[in-house]
Amino acid sequence: MLGQAAFDRDYLQRRIATEFALGVHIGAVVELADASGLVLSAPLAPNANYKGTAFGGSLFSLAVLTGWAWLTRYLALEAVAADAVIQTSNIRYLEPVHGEFRARLENPPSATIEKFARMLRRAGRGRIALGVDIHDGAILAARFDGVYAAMARDA
Amino acid sequence: MLGQAAFDRDYLQRRIATEFALGVHIGAVVELADASGLVLSAPLAPNANYKGTAFGGSLFSLAVLTGWAWLTRYLALEAVAADAVIQTSNIRYLEPVHGEFRARLENPPSATIEKFARMLRRAGRGRIALGVDIHDGAILAARFDGVYAAMARDA
Repeated sequence: MLGQAAFDRDYLQRRIATEFALGVHIGAVVELADASGLVLSAPLAPNANYKGTAFGGSLFSLAVLTGWAWLTRYLALEAVAADAVIQTSNIRYLEPVHGEFRARLENPPSATIEKFARMLRRAGRGRIALGVDIHDGAILAARFDGVYAAMARDA
Repeated sequence: MLGQAAFDRDYLQRRIATEFALGVHIGAVVELADASGLVLSAPLAPNANYKGTAFGGSLFSLAVLTGWAWLTRYLALEAVAADAVIQTSNIRYLEPVHGEFRARLENPPSATIEKFARMLRRAGRGRIALGVDIHDGAILAARFDGVYAAMARDA
């Protein structure tokens, strides 16, 4: 189910372009969206602070968009009319970012996805934990862990 | 010491304007910076998503700047040549934001500040936990808890 091309990176790029003005401003690019996970990137320029490193709020923004994109894609593939929203998140900054940065989300375990799907079917809402690593080249620069909720629009 | 006007809101507004391009883009305004704490605000327009509510990354960005501003002001008042950087943070989103939003930081307890000051004197670096509430009018919309580090530039 997650392999369907209709909700691939072009779909997510369009959604970000029309729904998140700040995502456009920071230059968020959906590089990969398939059954293996998601990768979003952003250039340094709009996100640089005076030291020439990326602003922590920009790293957070790309990470939170990456989790949103994963959940939005999942809901689209499952044909669930629901919105994805962030509820809580934690971010650890490990190294400064000196260039383009990439946010990679690996799919949660199947059991986590199945539990989320059951909650969504039964209650019209569900919560799921999603983790995102941010790299500057080969360097792990930040780790984001978020809990997202999906709420059926007509629940 | 914290009452000195030389490092008041105009000082912090200038620092943000010259050091954080994304802070300028989101419209961060230093409304208050004195011995009682800090308040920064931002308008909805540059931060709105398609639903007309503020993007979670924008709320985070204003909050993380507020903690940075508090620590930067503290270091300036203490005449410590050190940079403030965020290390880890947690944010809980409680209610959607439909308009201008305000980030308020209350001073940490004196004992916390004194411990931080001791670390900074002895080791040239220190860590301090800072909490920020974000309100949309009277509504508490998000709660941010960050741990910041200050590192002496010539340590």
